[in-house]
Amino acid sequence: MTQTRLIKNASQVVTMAGHSERPAKREAMHELNIIENGSVLVQDGKVKAVGTLSELEQQYKEDVLVAEVLDVTGKTVTPGLIDPHTHLVHAGTRENEYAMRLKGKSYMDIMNAGGGIHATTKATRGADFDQLYEESKQRLDTFFQYGVTTIEAKSGYGLSLEHELKQLEVAGKLNEDHAMDVVSTFMGAHAVPVDERDNPEPFVKRVIDEMIPEVARRKIAKFNDVFCERGVFTPEQSRRILEAGKAHGLVPKIHADEIESYGGAELAAEVGAISADHLLKASDEGILKMAANDVMGVLLPGTAFFLMAEFADARKMIDSGVPVALSTDANPGSSPTLSLQFIMNLGCLKMGMTPEEVLTAATINAAHAIDCADRIGSLEAGKQADIAIFDVPNHLMLSYNYGMNHVESVMKKGELVVGK
Amino acid sequence: MTQTRLIKNASQVVTMAGHSERPAKREAMHELNIIENGSVLVQDGKVKAVGTLSELEQQYKEDVLVAEVLDVTGKTVTPGLIDPHTHLVHAGTRENEYAMRLKGKSYMDIMNAGGGIHATTKATRGADFDQLYEESKQRLDTFFQYGVTTIEAKSGYGLSLEHELKQLEVAGKLNEDHAMDVVSTFMGAHAVPVDERDNPEPFVKRVIDEMIPEVARRKIAKFNDVFCERGVFTPEQSRRILEAGKAHGLVPKIHADEIESYGGAELAAEVGAISADHLLKASDEGILKMAANDVMGVLLPGTAFFLMAEFADARKMIDSGVPVALSTDANPGSSPTLSLQFIMNLGCLKMGMTPEEVLTAATINAAHAIDCADRIGSLEAGKQADIAIFDVPNHLMLSYNYGMNHVESVMKKGELVVGK
Ligand SMILES: [Zn+2]
Ligand SMILES: [Zn+2]
Repeated sequence: MTQTRLIKNASQVVTMAGHSERPAKREAMHELNIIENGSVLVQDGKVKAVGTLSELEQQYKEDVLVAEVLDVTGKTVTPGLIDPHTHLVHAGTRENEYAMRLKGKSYMDIMNAGGGIHATTKATRGADFDQLYEESKQRLDTFFQYGVTTIEAKSGYGLSLEHELKQLEVAGKLNEDHAMDVVSTFMGAHAVPVDERDNPEPFVKRVIDEMIPEVARRKIAKFNDVFCERGVFTPEQSRRILEAGKAHGLVPKIHADEIESYGGAELAAEVGAISADHLLKASDEGILKMAANDVMGVLLPGTAFFLMAEFADARKMIDSGVPVALSTDANPGSSPTLSLQFIMNLGCLKMGMTPEEVLTAATINAAHAIDCADRIGSLEAGKQADIAIFDVPNHLMLSYNYGMNHVESVMKKGELVVGK
Repeated sequence: MTQTRLIKNASQVVTMAGHSERPAKREAMHELNIIENGSVLVQDGKVKAVGTLSELEQQYKEDVLVAEVLDVTGKTVTPGLIDPHTHLVHAGTRENEYAMRLKGKSYMDIMNAGGGIHATTKATRGADFDQLYEESKQRLDTFFQYGVTTIEAKSGYGLSLEHELKQLEVAGKLNEDHAMDVVSTFMGAHAVPVDERDNPEPFVKRVIDEMIPEVARRKIAKFNDVFCERGVFTPEQSRRILEAGKAHGLVPKIHADEIESYGGAELAAEVGAISADHLLKASDEGILKMAANDVMGVLLPGTAFFLMAEFADARKMIDSGVPVALSTDANPGSSPTLSLQFIMNLGCLKMGMTPEEVLTAATINAAHAIDCADRIGSLEAGKQADIAIFDVPNHLMLSYNYGMNHVESVMKKGELVVGK
């Protein structure tokens, strides 16, 4: 039994209570269930109770008496943020490519200079377990600094059984060693290896016949993701890959309709994907199908911001009944950020979302996007005590004071991992 | 004599050397004068020397021997960032207005709910010296956290002699008490008082005949700024206000061409303003006139980001020979951020600037915009030891890893004010 803790007198405790059974949609995305002047009682790494201080003092008198107290007067408490789409495990950075792009160099110039996704594939294949572990561990530390307490992490820079397994093993080891919860996704179908571009079918077969069975056998991933986009994997190939995963117990996810409308949103609904991600060009029909099937739309506005592209139409999706989550898409090519707070800013200022919607999207809906809403994403009795404490008096300030990191401290399973 | 300090082994020391005499323009904005594996020797609050460690050890052997060492291996050192346009001293926040806007409420709805600039004017008039001092002091602490070591601060929420003086006195006292350097600008002509909207001329006269002489007599401002925009102050009124300031020794600045092309850039050149700020709608003629007269263009992309407007055309201005600086425009209505790093991100991703240009714009050119380039804005012998240390291996990472705060530590006049 670990230390009982009392986080007391927050100007707001945003509980997000009441959405654990199913994702929040439409108006439900505004139901933050805020307790003004709220306190949270934490015991054995879990939330024991949430309420006003006097309520807790009355109902849990003995626990409150022995609790270590964290006075957060004037601050805002939320569930730890959850990032449901990252490419955490990879080697190297691509800032030179970024600088070339800003100086007007063409895509081909950048490719010829060794840039693009294959640069990261090459670096990741060349890196050993320890290097990948060390780089990724530092990123997890930084995610904590920005208030994130659980992330999803995809493979997909290996593109061979050996190197895909290496990425997943790093993520798995970090999930064990690091206080952060890391939920793994196999994404062998992230790109076609550069020397197989002209004929991707043998690679698709290897993903289906070789990689998926072995990943499933080792139980080192929960989800199976595919990049469904013209020039990468067709909807037909994507469907086969996702169905193969399902046959082995891997839940489908899909990178859908990022560059053009390509049937990805529709496919997500048809195969019963837990989420479809990106969706910048999702068709109206695809959006309606996602809504009808409760497929989470995981939106990644950082990618549009960094690539200077159009943003996904979050407003239309939410109004159509699609449950929406937000994520950094953290990766070295199209979204090199680790700040989900800034992604929330973009949700408000670039995708027509409200402050309530972005907070729902970055907590309980993000938990649903990775099938963890039974234990994280809200502050309710029995849930994991994953808690972000922000140095702002109300949750509106998180995106009003834009471009900043408002984290004061972060608690993971009842222990402080940021702040003191 | 204070402690001698040695900041050693930075992967990059971005010196910005060579631009102190005049603002960097065109190609000169790419001349960062970086020392790879660089070190900085600091004595008596000033930069004594910059070079490689072995150079410093050879030339300043005795100083190096007694120096307190800060090992910054793997990190990037730059001049402390400079924010040349803020509305630091004000009371209150307007996050409710922001939330209303995101929920589709009209400008009139917001006004009727007590929003807009007059909300801040009312709050600032109602606040006493101590409250304004305390709120502003906290903002200065935050500016330090984000790597800024000097800011400009405008009055302009008082709109009467009494309350304009109060704002300037707060800024002046903070300049004395706080480690931050605060450079003051009188901006009585920030808005027309709400009850004089129909007939602003008496207010213009009070600014000219009453406020400017008293501000000058008390020597509590260096610059005189005016909001030249349709419905606020005409170019003719703006010219009279700026000329009146000049007659009293106040250097002209101007909020120009933010909403429409209104002759503000031209006026800046004609009255010899040190800077014209905003410039989203500056005319081609105005841009050429600014270039010909070396008027600094202070660009404030945070305002466009927060108000979801078009961005200024930094690329055109730089290519036309206008020296460009960047600033937060920190204020509660149109740009409630304190992160100049994020403004640099916007410079790259939204205004067509390069990483080199944004760094020049936030250091030495920002120093020129507030006439302080003789003592800050670059790391050269004799300059103030105002130094930002970023936890990134090269300066490109500052905007590549977007939306984040990369500050590791900050030195002000040779003393650490952030980090340890
Ligand atoms: Zn992705
Ligand atoms: Zn301004």
